[in-house]
Amino acid sequence: MEILDTGNKIIKNVNRVAFGKGSFSSLQELISNKVSDTGYGIIFLDSYFADKNLFQVHERCEIILVDTSQEPKTSKIDEIMDSLRNKHCELPDVIVGIGGGSTLDTAKACSNLFTNPGSAADYQGWDKVKNPGVFKIGVPTISGTGSEATRTCVMTNTHSGLKLGMNSDYTVFDHIILDPILTSTIPRNQYFFTGMDAYIHCMEALEGNYRNPVGDAYSRETLKLCREVFRSKDMLETSCREKLMVASYLGGCSIATSYVGVVHPFSAGLSVVLGIHHCEANCIVMNAMEEFYPKYYEEFHSMAKEQDVQLKKGVASQLTDEQYDRLYESTIIHEKPLYNALGSDFKKVLTKEKVKEIFKKM
Amino acid sequence: MEILDTGNKIIKNVNRVAFGKGSFSSLQELISNKVSDTGYGIIFLDSYFADKNLFQVHERCEIILVDTSQEPKTSKIDEIMDSLRNKHCELPDVIVGIGGGSTLDTAKACSNLFTNPGSAADYQGWDKVKNPGVFKIGVPTISGTGSEATRTCVMTNTHSGLKLGMNSDYTVFDHIILDPILTSTIPRNQYFFTGMDAYIHCMEALEGNYRNPVGDAYSRETLKLCREVFRSKDMLETSCREKLMVASYLGGCSIATSYVGVVHPFSAGLSVVLGIHHCEANCIVMNAMEEFYPKYYEEFHSMAKEQDVQLKKGVASQLTDEQYDRLYESTIIHEKPLYNALGSDFKKVLTKEKVKEIFKKM
Repeated sequence: MEILDTGNKIIKNVNRVAFGKGSFSSLQELISNKVSDTGYGIIFLDSYFADKNLFQVHERCEIILVDTSQEPKTSKIDEIMDSLRNKHCELPDVIVGIGGGSTLDTAKACSNLFTNPGSAADYQGWDKVKNPGVFKIGVPTISGTGSEATRTCVMTNTHSGLKLGMNSDYTVFDHIILDPILTSTIPRNQYFFTGMDAYIHCMEALEGNYRNPVGDAYSRETLKLCREVFRSKDMLETSCREKLMVASYLGGCSIATSYVGVVHPFSAGLSVVLGIHHCEANCIVMNAMEEFYPKYYEEFHSMAKEQDVQLKKGVASQLTDEQYDRLYESTIIHEKPLYNALGSDFKKVLTKEKVKEIFKKM
Repeated sequence: MEILDTGNKIIKNVNRVAFGKGSFSSLQELISNKVSDTGYGIIFLDSYFADKNLFQVHERCEIILVDTSQEPKTSKIDEIMDSLRNKHCELPDVIVGIGGGSTLDTAKACSNLFTNPGSAADYQGWDKVKNPGVFKIGVPTISGTGSEATRTCVMTNTHSGLKLGMNSDYTVFDHIILDPILTSTIPRNQYFFTGMDAYIHCMEALEGNYRNPVGDAYSRETLKLCREVFRSKDMLETSCREKLMVASYLGGCSIATSYVGVVHPFSAGLSVVLGIHHCEANCIVMNAMEEFYPKYYEEFHSMAKEQDVQLKKGVASQLTDEQYDRLYESTIIHEKPLYNALGSDFKKVLTKEKVKEIFKKM
């Protein structure tokens, strides 16, 4: 098939990127420079860090703990915003997100909603955000989702069940801090699943029909770094955590000009219907991807084995017809990535029966 | 030797990057959105394009042709600024640079000088620029210097003879347009020399003692793209020009967190003492780099051969003692890159006699 242009021509970069061991210590000064004597800041913090004394909280900052047992929902974001709007008459001077993809995405969504009226669901889609959000700083504490670099914040619409982000230049962080020290306490499995989010996204992009030379360059380097990490003796060793942090950032940069493929639509099905987290869901889908990505299927599983990571098996092997119907619907709805991977005939390849068969393989 | 941290922890990105064939057509609208009914814009245009009708000039924009037969000098920049300040009471709404590294650097320097008092030389060095410059758009018409992505604009100080940039976050373009159509009329040799600027900078960075994982990632991908271009049958073919444009941008991104090595200091000597342009000077220096970069020496010359590019030989073989003295001085002054390449004993390696011998080999 002919290589097609992704059509994504403008890349909005994160304005400033602080990188390296110890760079987290710069957060305090950054906040102080932003928060006025009468103003305030909001820090969204992954609840995992609630009792970890990760940093000294600026006196004019309020902490909002983000429960990441569930991924962001539009209703949850609206609830947070209602409470904040009731409490404060003025806009915050700064919003900070410290955590994984869910926490960063929550911070990004709230930053936009402070300056754009209405509710979160109103802005799901492309370029619906009209006003720049509050100045926002992102601090990832796990590597792979790339949320620190992207122009989206993914939320599940509470009514429609659709997973869709606020895709907008205004969603991009103004400043991010990439400090590998922050990823030193992550459980092995979670580290692997999340890191693999970058690997899987980039391999889907490079195997797709829609391509962009800038995105391709980011994707290749991301894959290279992921391989170095997941083929090393200890993926959690300091230099590996540093590399995975770079991979996550560059993988996030690649998202702006590329499309995913077969994995992400199936993974969305698992998240929406069975509530499995995005990154783990991606890895579970890889159990059934031999047919579509044979080379990467092989490599992915050999890396999982080397790192002694066990994947859940059979999560979708014995479901009701109604559940399979919903899985089919929430997979096939992602037309752009499926077209990217399989061409215009993707519905002929992925019949209802075939989709069910693939889910059963997981 | 131990790997050292470059210490460059904060990366300032270009805010927006437009990429792809035809993206140049977006310039008109970008300018229109910036220039008010009573305001004006300034377009610095490489004089090569003076009669090429490259685009329709916005009615409230003034064109300043940049003569690139010589690289930017502080006195020349001051001269342009004096004339502009005499003519206009107000700041321009936008500054555009369309051309190679010299033209882009001229645009960057003038953008800063509109909002910072004094002359160009006052801001040579690190972080001396105190106020954000005028909104600036960069449009490279040749690939390799990476000026479109860097936080510097290199100028030769007319009095001291020192080549040094205004290194500042404020020097970074706000918007760049990377359109490979613009590089279709470049002479072969110039295309090769300039593209090799990216290759040489990145190999120096990767061979250095000071390293940064983000910079390394950019450098590796830049080298990969340069190899694809210069080892292809026709380096000027459309897909190659597209790849080299990406390489130039990513190579520019790598500069923020890396140091060059032996080539650039010697190349600066050739530019300052003999007036040879930066990119060609780099390539000429490669004639004498077998000892320091054997692998890259080999690869560079095989690529030059494959692309049928002839390098000048013997440009510094028969000079006066006074000239060799000046070459030595203007090479050895670049302590940071030489330390990066050769360690703290670099002056023991590069004695005056040795430096002369190296120049004679070119």
